[in-house]
Amino acid sequence: MQPAITLDDVAPLARGCAVLGTGGGGDVRSGALAAARAIREHGEVPLVTLADLDADALVVPLSGIGAPTVSHEMIHAEAEPDRIRDEIERLFGRPPAAVMSSEIGGSNGVAPVAWAARLGVPLLDADGMGRAFPEVQMVSMYVAGLPANLVIMSDVVGNVVTIRPVDGLWAERIARAVCVAAGSSALMADYVLTAREARGAVIEGTVTRAIAVGRSTDGAADPLAALRETLGAELLIGGKVTDVARRTAGGFVRGTVTVEGVAGDRGRTLTLEIQNENLVALEDGRVLAMVPDLITVVDTQAATAVQTEALRYGQRVSVLAWPCDPLWRTPKGLATAGPRAFGYDLDYVPVERSARVNGGTREAAR
Amino acid sequence: MQPAITLDDVAPLARGCAVLGTGGGGDVRSGALAAARAIREHGEVPLVTLADLDADALVVPLSGIGAPTVSHEMIHAEAEPDRIRDEIERLFGRPPAAVMSSEIGGSNGVAPVAWAARLGVPLLDADGMGRAFPEVQMVSMYVAGLPANLVIMSDVVGNVVTIRPVDGLWAERIARAVCVAAGSSALMADYVLTAREARGAVIEGTVTRAIAVGRSTDGAADPLAALRETLGAELLIGGKVTDVARRTAGGFVRGTVTVEGVAGDRGRTLTLEIQNENLVALEDGRVLAMVPDLITVVDTQAATAVQTEALRYGQRVSVLAWPCDPLWRTPKGLATAGPRAFGYDLDYVPVERSARVNGGTREAAR
Repeated sequence: MQPAITLDDVAPLARGCAVLGTGGGGDVRSGALAAARAIREHGEVPLVTLADLDADALVVPLSGIGAPTVSHEMIHAEAEPDRIRDEIERLFGRPPAAVMSSEIGGSNGVAPVAWAARLGVPLLDADGMGRAFPEVQMVSMYVAGLPANLVIMSDVVGNVVTIRPVDGLWAERIARAVCVAAGSSALMADYVLTAREARGAVIEGTVTRAIAVGRSTDGAADPLAALRETLGAELLIGGKVTDVARRTAGGFVRGTVTVEGVAGDRGRTLTLEIQNENLVALEDGRVLAMVPDLITVVDTQAATAVQTEALRYGQRVSVLAWPCDPLWRTPKGLATAGPRAFGYDLDYVPVERSARVNGGTREAAR
Repeated sequence: MQPAITLDDVAPLARGCAVLGTGGGGDVRSGALAAARAIREHGEVPLVTLADLDADALVVPLSGIGAPTVSHEMIHAEAEPDRIRDEIERLFGRPPAAVMSSEIGGSNGVAPVAWAARLGVPLLDADGMGRAFPEVQMVSMYVAGLPANLVIMSDVVGNVVTIRPVDGLWAERIARAVCVAAGSSALMADYVLTAREARGAVIEGTVTRAIAVGRSTDGAADPLAALRETLGAELLIGGKVTDVARRTAGGFVRGTVTVEGVAGDRGRTLTLEIQNENLVALEDGRVLAMVPDLITVVDTQAATAVQTEALRYGQRVSVLAWPCDPLWRTPKGLATAGPRAFGYDLDYVPVERSARVNGGTREAAR
C-alpha cells in the first residue's frame, strides 16, 4: 500500500517541522490547521518518492514567503495554490504531478500537505532545504546548479506574479520585493522541475524524517533525551531566556536572544543571532554552532520547539544543534547559506567540532 | 503613402514630448538618441492609426518605469523589448502588431520609436495619457474600464516579471516594488490589448500632436508665444527659479520648486509641487493649476521644456498650464489622477478657470 499522510500524521509532522525550523519557517500551527482541514475535506495525501514519478512529471516546490510574524496571521487562501497550478498549466501545457515542500522547517513543511490535498496530487517525500532558511535562493536546487528560471507567486489578494530571473539572487531580490508589496506574505512556487531534474537536486526523505522527529518524544520518559537521540543533536545550553530583542523589517524578523544557564549550566550565557531562523550560537565570543547547521530552542520539559516569535523572558529552554545535510557543507552550499551569506565574518566549523568543549561534548563538560 | 517617423521627426518629437512631460516622464535626450540610432539601423517607423489595424491585432503599450533621475543614466538595453515580445508570444500565441507609447510625455513618448523599430512593427499614433503621469494605473485604459490583467516587465539585468494583478492599483504597487528591486528602472508593457479593445481606451493622435508641438517653435520670432498658441496654454508666471528641493525615494522624485516673478511678474512667487511631474502650481496659497491639467516649465527665451531634474537656481523660466484630455476630467479620470490621487486635498478646478486672475487671463492681469 502506498504510504500517505493521514490525519494522525499531521500533529507529529508539525512538531517535527517546528524542530527542523530552527526558530523560523513560520508557526507550524497555522500549517497544521490547514493540513488537517484539507485532509478532512479531500482525503489522505499520498506520499511519493522520486522513483514513483515519471521522469517528465512536474514537481512544484511550494512555500509561503514572508515575515513569520505576518504569515502567522495570514493563512494562505485556498485559491492561492489553484492560481499557481493554473499558471503552471498555462506555461507548461500540463499540471503539476506532485507538490514538494520547498522548506521542511516550520509551517512550510506542514502546509504543503494542504496544498497537495487541495490540488489532488501527491506530496513528494523531499524538500529543498532539510531545514528552514530565510531567502529564496537558499535551496538545494540552486546549490545543485539548476537554473533558477521560474518563480510563480500568488498572494491573498489574488495577484499572480511570474518571475523569470537571471539567477537565484535576483529571484530572491524580486520575490522579496513582491512579497513586501503584497503585505509581507505570499505563496510561491520556486522552480518548477521534472522528476528527472529533481534527482540529486532535492533533499529526499525529509517528510518521513520530520514525522519521525515529531514522534520521537511520544511517551518518552525523557523527551529531551529522546529528541536529541533522534536528531543526533548536541546540547548547547540548558537555561532560561533572559532577553529577546527582535524587529520585523524588509520582510524579515531579525534579533538576538540571550539564554542564561541553570542547574549544571549556571554561570554560562548563550547568545543566539536570528534572521527569521537561529543562525549563530555564541558563548563569550566563541561560536558553538552556526548556519547552515541547525540550531533549535526547545522547551526543556516537553522538548517541543519554541519559535523565535514565541520566545519570552523566563522560559526554561534547551538549545540544541546538529549537522545539516551534507549538500550545505559543499563550497557552493556554504557560499549560498553559510555564515558569510548572512553577513557573519566567520569561517564555517561543523557543529560536531565547534560545540565540543575541552575535547568532550557539552554534556561531558557539564 | 503611409506616414512614418523619420530621422527628421525625432528632434521635434522629443521637444514636444518634453513639453507634454510636465517636468517628468524621463529625460527625452536618452529616448531621442535611442530612437535615432534605431531608425538608422532598422529604418523609418510606420505610424498607424487604430483604423489601420486588424481588430484582433495586438497593441503593446510600452514605457520605462522608474525614477527619472535613475533612468536618465540607464538606457534600456536592446534586448529588453525583445524579451517582452517573446513573453507576449508565449502568452498569446502571436507577436504584437504595433507598439504604443503608454505615456507620450517625456522619454516614454520618444523611446517607443526605438522599441518599434527594433521589433519591426509600426508605432500607433496614440498613447495612454496624453501627457506624463507617475503611476502605473494612471492610464486611459484603466479609466476606460479595461481590466488591468497583465503587466510584463523586463530590466537591464535580464529579469522578466509578469504580473496578473487584481486591479490597476495592485499593478502599480507590485510593479513599483519590482522596479525598485531592479534598480529603479525597467521596461514595462502595461496591458496588452487588441485594436478592438483600444478603441475609446487610448488617447489618439498624440504622436502627431507631440511632433506639432515640437515644430511650433521652429523659426518663430517669439517661440514662447508660438508654443502657447499651439498648446492653448495659460502663462502662470514669467520669472526665475529661486529654490529647488527634491529627493529620490521609493522610485519617485518628489520636491518643490519656487519661481519668483521678473519684469511684469515682479513681486509674485509661484510654487510648484512635484511627484516626478509638476502637479500643483500655487501662488499665495491659491491654486493656479493642478493635475490632471498640464503644467510645464519652459526656458523663457527658447520655449524648450525644462525637466524637473534640470531646474537650477537662477534659471529664467516661464510656467505654462493647459487643459488635459477630457477623459481625465470624468469622475473616474479625476479619481485616478486628480489632485486627491496624489494626496492633495483639493477640489479639481479646470485650468481655464483657476489660472485666470480678476476675471481675465494671467496675461491680462499682467
